[in-house]
Amino acid sequence: MTIRGNLFIVSAPSGAGKSSLISALLKDKPSDMQVSVSHTTRQPRPGEVNGQHYHFVSIEEFKALIAANAFFEWAEVFGNYYGTSRTVIEQTLAKGIDVFLDIDWQGGEQVKKLMPEAVGVFILPPSKTELARRLTGRGQDSQDVIDSRMAQAVSEMSHYTQYDFVIVNDDFDTALVDLQAIIRSQRLTCASQSHTHNGMLVDLLAN
Amino acid sequence: MTIRGNLFIVSAPSGAGKSSLISALLKDKPSDMQVSVSHTTRQPRPGEVNGQHYHFVSIEEFKALIAANAFFEWAEVFGNYYGTSRTVIEQTLAKGIDVFLDIDWQGGEQVKKLMPEAVGVFILPPSKTELARRLTGRGQDSQDVIDSRMAQAVSEMSHYTQYDFVIVNDDFDTALVDLQAIIRSQRLTCASQSHTHNGMLVDLLAN
Repeated sequence: MTIRGNLFIVSAPSGAGKSSLISALLKDKPSDMQVSVSHTTRQPRPGEVNGQHYHFVSIEEFKALIAANAFFEWAEVFGNYYGTSRTVIEQTLAKGIDVFLDIDWQGGEQVKKLMPEAVGVFILPPSKTELARRLTGRGQDSQDVIDSRMAQAVSEMSHYTQYDFVIVNDDFDTALVDLQAIIRSQRLTCASQSHTHNGMLVDLLAN
Repeated sequence: MTIRGNLFIVSAPSGAGKSSLISALLKDKPSDMQVSVSHTTRQPRPGEVNGQHYHFVSIEEFKALIAANAFFEWAEVFGNYYGTSRTVIEQTLAKGIDVFLDIDWQGGEQVKKLMPEAVGVFILPPSKTELARRLTGRGQDSQDVIDSRMAQAVSEMSHYTQYDFVIVNDDFDTALVDLQAIIRSQRLTCASQSHTHNGMLVDLLAN
């Protein structure tokens, strides 16, 4: 059996619970699932481990990787570079490990272009009211800040149609089972199973 | 919320455990799943209930239904007619109920042509050896009969590539969870969720 992992692009507006769902998914440290570890040029924060939280590299190394087309996608944010390495992901998938890319719709679009077989999962809140409640937080921010968050959320959500699956995160436990079902089902596609059981299928169909 | 059920075409060679899996799936009589109930012109057997085991009709009624293009697929077997009614299936799906069509690859191909959004699931045995063991049964049949069953099985299995999902039924409980994951994931596709949560999405994305 030669299992190949699947690449999942997971996107959501703030307040949808995406990070909590991914954390819960990986809570028991399954051997066949990982969150994609990005490359960055920023300094590690206390407690961050190289290769676990990020691959920490110099700006020169990062630019060399860009020039070598090593990234699915990259961006500069406040002087620091961040990117998703295609090589690292390919190596992880080849080991039979599913990889989760916690990424916005624009990054997701770039990845999907380069790897059409990547599976897009969009997490939505159960209603506008609930989203507003979650974005308001402790009520310490000005209305302008809250309105800005909501506009950003609506903008992100408008791209849900570009995704393969949609999870409405109303009850958290239900949403988690939904996510697990999607992940499991992608190992059962004809393409995935043909790859996994290649030898057995040749034998099964021989006359 | 307006849920639309999904149509699942489930095929397998003899000995793969398809019928057992479908029975186990429906054991607790879930309200959102049903096996498709075929039409037939044969006489009911003791214990069979009209509308539950089959829709029992006369040959005239059956031929009128053929003429009215009511069937996804139909066939005559030893003088009796059997068919899958498109109307009955459409009505069941519209009620938000998933429908399972226990059918061979040829019937499945006809259904997929008429309803491309139907989801094909092929059940395979875990190996040729295990298949031979299951097809041999109690060892009361001649080698010719067993060889014929195996040839028929190999012929059916050669069409697995026409299906969307493949389940290798090695451990039964695992295969059942696989089937449940596929079913659940199909309610989470973008198309299905857009339909189910139509009103909520309009509100969510309004400015």
